[in-house]
Amino acid sequence: MHSVGICGSDVHFWTEGVVGPFVVKAPMVLGHEGSGTVSELGEGVTHLKVGDRVAMEPGVPCRYCTACKGGRYNLCKDVKFCATPPTDGSLCRYYVHAADLCFKLPDNVSYEEGALLEPLSVAVHACRRSEVTIGSKVLICGAGPIGLVCLQVAKAMGAAQVVITDIDAKRLEFARHQMGADVTVLVTSRDGREVADQVVQVLGCNPDVTIECSGAETSIHAGIYATEPGGVLMIVGLGRPMATIPLLDAALKEVDIRGNLRYANDYPTALAMIASGQVNVKPLVSHRYSLEQALEAFEFAKKGEGIKVMIHCDKTKAL
Amino acid sequence: MHSVGICGSDVHFWTEGVVGPFVVKAPMVLGHEGSGTVSELGEGVTHLKVGDRVAMEPGVPCRYCTACKGGRYNLCKDVKFCATPPTDGSLCRYYVHAADLCFKLPDNVSYEEGALLEPLSVAVHACRRSEVTIGSKVLICGAGPIGLVCLQVAKAMGAAQVVITDIDAKRLEFARHQMGADVTVLVTSRDGREVADQVVQVLGCNPDVTIECSGAETSIHAGIYATEPGGVLMIVGLGRPMATIPLLDAALKEVDIRGNLRYANDYPTALAMIASGQVNVKPLVSHRYSLEQALEAFEFAKKGEGIKVMIHCDKTKAL
Amino acid sequence: MHSVGICGSDVHFWTEGVVGPFVVKAPMVLGHEGSGTVSELGEGVTHLKVGDRVAMEPGVPCRYCTACKGGRYNLCKDVKFCATPPTDGSLCRYYVHAADLCFKLPDNVSYEEGALLEPLSVAVHACRRSEVTIGSKVLICGAGPIGLVCLQVAKAMGAAQVVITDIDAKRLEFARHQMGADVTVLVTSRDGREVADQVVQVLGCNPDVTIECSGAETSIHAGIYATEPGGVLMIVGLGRPMATIPLLDAALKEVDIRGNLRYANDYPTALAMIASGQVNVKPLVSHRYSLEQALEAFEFAKKGEGIKVMIHCDKTKAL
Amino acid sequence: MHSVGICGSDVHFWTEGVVGPFVVKAPMVLGHEGSGTVSELGEGVTHLKVGDRVAMEPGVPCRYCTACKGGRYNLCKDVKFCATPPTDGSLCRYYVHAADLCFKLPDNVSYEEGALLEPLSVAVHACRRSEVTIGSKVLICGAGPIGLVCLQVAKAMGAAQVVITDIDAKRLEFARHQMGADVTVLVTSRDGREVADQVVQVLGCNPDVTIECSGAETSIHAGIYATEPGGVLMIVGLGRPMATIPLLDAALKEVDIRGNLRYANDYPTALAMIASGQVNVKPLVSHRYSLEQALEAFEFAKKGEGIKVMIHCDKTKAL
Repeated sequence: MHSVGICGSDVHFWTEGVVGPFVVKAPMVLGHEGSGTVSELGEGVTHLKVGDRVAMEPGVPCRYCTACKGGRYNLCKDVKFCATPPTDGSLCRYYVHAADLCFKLPDNVSYEEGALLEPLSVAVHACRRSEVTIGSKVLICGAGPIGLVCLQVAKAMGAAQVVITDIDAKRLEFARHQMGADVTVLVTSRDGREVADQVVQVLGCNPDVTIECSGAETSIHAGIYATEPGGVLMIVGLGRPMATIPLLDAALKEVDIRGNLRYANDYPTALAMIASGQVNVKPLVSHRYSLEQALEAFEFAKKGEGIKVMIHCDKTKAL
Repeated sequence: MHSVGICGSDVHFWTEGVVGPFVVKAPMVLGHEGSGTVSELGEGVTHLKVGDRVAMEPGVPCRYCTACKGGRYNLCKDVKFCATPPTDGSLCRYYVHAADLCFKLPDNVSYEEGALLEPLSVAVHACRRSEVTIGSKVLICGAGPIGLVCLQVAKAMGAAQVVITDIDAKRLEFARHQMGADVTVLVTSRDGREVADQVVQVLGCNPDVTIECSGAETSIHAGIYATEPGGVLMIVGLGRPMATIPLLDAALKEVDIRGNLRYANDYPTALAMIASGQVNVKPLVSHRYSLEQALEAFEFAKKGEGIKVMIHCDKTKAL
Repeated sequence: MHSVGICGSDVHFWTEGVVGPFVVKAPMVLGHEGSGTVSELGEGVTHLKVGDRVAMEPGVPCRYCTACKGGRYNLCKDVKFCATPPTDGSLCRYYVHAADLCFKLPDNVSYEEGALLEPLSVAVHACRRSEVTIGSKVLICGAGPIGLVCLQVAKAMGAAQVVITDIDAKRLEFARHQMGADVTVLVTSRDGREVADQVVQVLGCNPDVTIECSGAETSIHAGIYATEPGGVLMIVGLGRPMATIPLLDAALKEVDIRGNLRYANDYPTALAMIASGQVNVKPLVSHRYSLEQALEAFEFAKKGEGIKVMIHCDKTKAL
Repeated sequence: MHSVGICGSDVHFWTEGVVGPFVVKAPMVLGHEGSGTVSELGEGVTHLKVGDRVAMEPGVPCRYCTACKGGRYNLCKDVKFCATPPTDGSLCRYYVHAADLCFKLPDNVSYEEGALLEPLSVAVHACRRSEVTIGSKVLICGAGPIGLVCLQVAKAMGAAQVVITDIDAKRLEFARHQMGADVTVLVTSRDGREVADQVVQVLGCNPDVTIECSGAETSIHAGIYATEPGGVLMIVGLGRPMATIPLLDAALKEVDIRGNLRYANDYPTALAMIASGQVNVKPLVSHRYSLEQALEAFEFAKKGEGIKVMIHCDKTKAL
C-alpha cells in the first residue's frame, strides 16, 4: 500500500465502533481509499505486472447474485468491503485484493490521486444517477470532500452552472477559487425555503439537479423547493435515519429523489477523468501523515478540520 | 358531455373550496373525468367529425414552455385544467375543448369507459414512471380507484405478481376477485416495517416496484422497507405536505422515490388498452346518477363509499 | 439432462461445422436449450438441492470484464457457451453447469418449458431492447420459433396490436390461432416498400417497433419503411454479413436499429412469465425424440419443418 | 436579421433545387442558421423586448401531433422549417418567427455565435442521442463543420478521448490544434476495417461511441468495426439513400445504429455551452460576406473550401 485517505466512516468506526448497521466486533484494520504497488500476482492475472502502480476499488462483490449480474454490484448483499466489519481495511503495508478491482495508474496520475479515486467514484456515481449533462444548472449542498468532487464531476459532465452551499464561508471560498464553483451560497437559515430562494436568486433560475452532500434536513428541504419540476434530488449525504421532508411537493413536481450507495463501474471513469485532466483533485489533500503517525492522523481527522487527510504507508516511493 | 366521473378533488373543491395551492374564488363548474359527443368543430380540425364519441384529456397545456416542448406537458406551469380554479370543469351539457385532446372512442369503448380514461391515464403514467415490466413483482398500497387501475395496468405491462394492500377487507376482496390482484394484505398495523414483512411473506420476495396510492405514511414506510434494492417507490397517493420517512434507508438501497403529476401522452395508451381488452375498468363504476341528480351524487361520493360515481349528462345516448 | 431443444445453430454446426466466426475443430456435443434434474451440487451451493428440476442458461460469462460487471454479460468476450466450439453442449445425460445459471422450475412448469426458456429469453431480451410497452403497435417479421416467442412476449408486455409476417401461410395461421397474433401479412413481394404498405394497411397505422426475425433483407427494408419515426427496428434474425439497406431513411426518421446477442438477466423473467401463465410456449413443441433417436431428430430438424424439435434425454421422468 | 451561415443544404437547393424529398417549386429565400435583433413583438410575448439580440431555431413544429407532445418535435410531419420548400429561409433583412424559438443572446455571445447555434444544436442532439458521457472514448468520422462541433460537444460532455478522421490533412490539423481533438487519423483506405484498425491503434482501445459525420460508406463500416460491443454508432452525415453495411456485425455486438434529424430542445443547451465557455465555435467562421455579396458567398461555399461561410445582413451592428 502507498496512500490511504481517511474517510468519515473510518473515524466513526474508530470512535464509536459502529456505522449504520455495521458493528465492529473484533479488531479490524481501517482504510478503504487506497492505492499501492503490485508486489505479487495471483494465478491467471495478465493485465497487471509486479511493480505496477494501482488504485484499489474497495468492494469485492459476490459476482453471482441478481444485483451483480445486472450491473449494479454496489447493491450486492454479499459484498466484502474494505474496513466494513468484518472485512479488514487497507491501511497497512500489504493488502491482498481482487485483481480486476486494481486499476493501473498511468504515469501522470499519482498515488494520492489513486487513493482519491474512491471519493471521486462516489461523485461519478452520484452525478450519473442524477443525470447531470451539458447545460445543466446544478445545486450542490455541502462543500465537504464529497460535495467538492461532485462539483468537479458536474462541471466535467458539462453543467453550465454549479452553485454550492455550506455553513462555512472558508469552504465556500475554497470551492469557488480552487474547485470551480460558479456561485456559492452561505447558509445561515434553517428554513429550506429561504435557502432555496437564495439559490434561485444567485443562479437566476431553478436548478435542474440538486446533489445533497451535507446530510442536513434543511438542505433536503432546500433541494426539494429549489429543484425545477421534472428534475432530480440526489441524496449523497448521510443524515439521520428518519427525515421529515416536503414529500408531497417533490411528488407533485415530479422531482425524483434518488440515493447513492458507493459506486459501480465508476472507477475506470474516475481514473480517465484524472488522467485526462478533466478534474483536479490534488488540492483536496490538505494534510499528510506517515503510517507511523496514523493515530495522530485520526486525531486530526476527528476534529473535522482540513479537507482530506492522507496517510502514506510506503516511504520508499514518491507520491 | 355524456359521462363525467366524480374524483376526490371534485369533492374537496365542493366541500372546502381548496385543494393544495388551488383556491376557488368564484363559482366554478366541477368535473374533469369526461366523455361526450362532438357537436361542433373548430377551424382546421380534421381528425374528428360531428357525432364522434370522444374522451377528453382535461388539461390544456401552453405548448410553448420548456416542459411542453420537452414532452412533459403535465409539468407546464400555465396548463388550464378542467375544474382547477379558475378553469371551469366539464360536468355540464356542452363543453369547448382543444381538439387534439379529444380522443375518438372506437365502437367497443363506451362513454363511461371514455370518462374512466382519466384515472386510467394516471395509472399508465405511474406504472410507466415506475418502470413496471415483464416479470416485475409489484406492491400497490391502497385499493381505491387509483390503486385498482394501477393494479390492472401493472398486470397489462407484464407484472408477474401484484400484491395490493388496504385497511378495508371488502376492497381487497374486490381487488382480488374483480381486478386480478394475485395476493392481498389487510393492513392492521401502523408500523410500516410490519406491513413490509407481511408483504414480503405473501409475495415470497421483495417487490421490485411499490406504487403508493393511499396517502398514508405507514404505506410510504412499508414501501421503502419492502422494495428491493435498486427498485422504485412511486408516490401517487396524496398525503400530508410534510412526511416523516426512512429516507436514509431508501437512499442506501438506491430505491428511487418518484412522484406523479397527472399524465402526459398517456390517454392514447389508456384508450388502446381498453379497446384491446388488456384492462377492464367497467367494474369500477359502482354508482350512476343523472346530471339533475348531481347534488345527490356528490353527497354520496362525499361518504367515500362505492368506488367510482358516474354522472350522465346526456340521456339521449346509451352508455 | 431431461429435455434439450434443437436450434438452427445446432443443425448448422452438425452439417457445416461452422456458424459465423465459430468453427468446430474437434468432436463437440451439441445442444444448448436444456433442462434437467440436479444430481449433484458443487461446494457452497445453497439455492438448489439434489432432485430439483432446473432450466439451464447456457452461457457462462467470465464475471470479471467490463461487460460482465456492467450487466451486459452477453457481450463478454470470454463467455463459455454450450455447443459453441470448443465448449461442449448439453445434449447428453449428465452436464456440469454453473449453479447460478440453473433456475429451479416451479411445479407448474415442465421440463420442456424449461428447455424453451432459451428461445423465450432471446425474445425477452429483444422485446426489452426494442422498448415494447403498453399500447405499442408491433410488427414482427418471420413466424419461426423466435418470431413466435417475440409475438407472445410483446403481447405480454402490453402491446396493443401485433402483426406478424411470413412467406408461409401455414405458419401465419399458427401464429394467429395458437399464438395470439392480431393480424398477419403473407409476404409475396421482394419489395420492402410493398410489404411495409401491406403492414400499415392491416395495422391501420405505422408500427412503433419492428422486430425482424427472418434474416431476409426484404424484411429489414420493410421494417425501416414501416416503422413510425422515433421507433425501433430490432434485428434478431441472422441474415448475410453485408446488407444493403435504406439507412438514410432510418436515420432521418430517427428509427434506431438495434441488434440482439442472446440474453442477459432474462432467464428469470422468462421463467416468471411461463409460471404465471403470461405466455404459453407449449404449442411450440411440434416433434419429440429420445436421446437414442437424436440422429433422426437432427435429420428431421434439417428439413426445416415443424416448429421446435425436442429431444428427451431422461425417460425416467415425465415432461 | 444579422448573421446567417451557409449550410450544405442551402448550396444544394441553390444548385440543384432539391434535397432528399424536398423540391423547390417556386422562388424561395435560403438560409436557416440565423441570428438577429428583435424589431417588433407579437401579441403576448413577454420574454423578449425590441432590441434584444436573438438566435433563431429555424423549425416551427405544429405543437399538436404525437411527436410534438412527446417532446420529439423534430419528428413533426408538419414542421415549417426555414429554407425547406415551400417555407422561406431567413437570409434577408427582416424575418417573422415564433417567439419561443427566438433565444436571447447574453452580452458575451456574438451574433455569429448565435447563428452557429444551429450546427451546434445538431451536435448537441447527436451527442445526447449517442450517450457520450464522462470517460467516453469517441470516434468522429469527418472533420467538416458538423464533425468539428460534435468534437467540441463530446469533449464538453466529458469524453476522455476523441479521435477524429478525415481524408484532408489540413482539416485534421485544424481539428487537433483549434478544436481540441486528442488524436487524428488521416483516411487513405476505402476499407472500413483498415480504418477501424488505425482508429483502435491511435486510441489504444475501441471507441464507445462513433459519430459518423462524413456520409461516406467507408466511415460507416469503420464505425461498425471499431465501436466497442454495446456502444453506439450515430449517423449524422447524409450518405446515399441505400448503404451496404456489415449489419450483422453491428447486431451481434449490440452496437446500436441511430440517426439524427436536426434537433429538439437543444438550442438552450447549445446557447448555455457557448455562454459558459464550454465550447468555442468562433474559429469555425472562415469567411464573411455582406448580404449584397450573397451570390459571391454561395459561389465560394460551393467550392467546399473553408469551414463556415457567414453572411452579414445588418451592417449597423457589430458581430
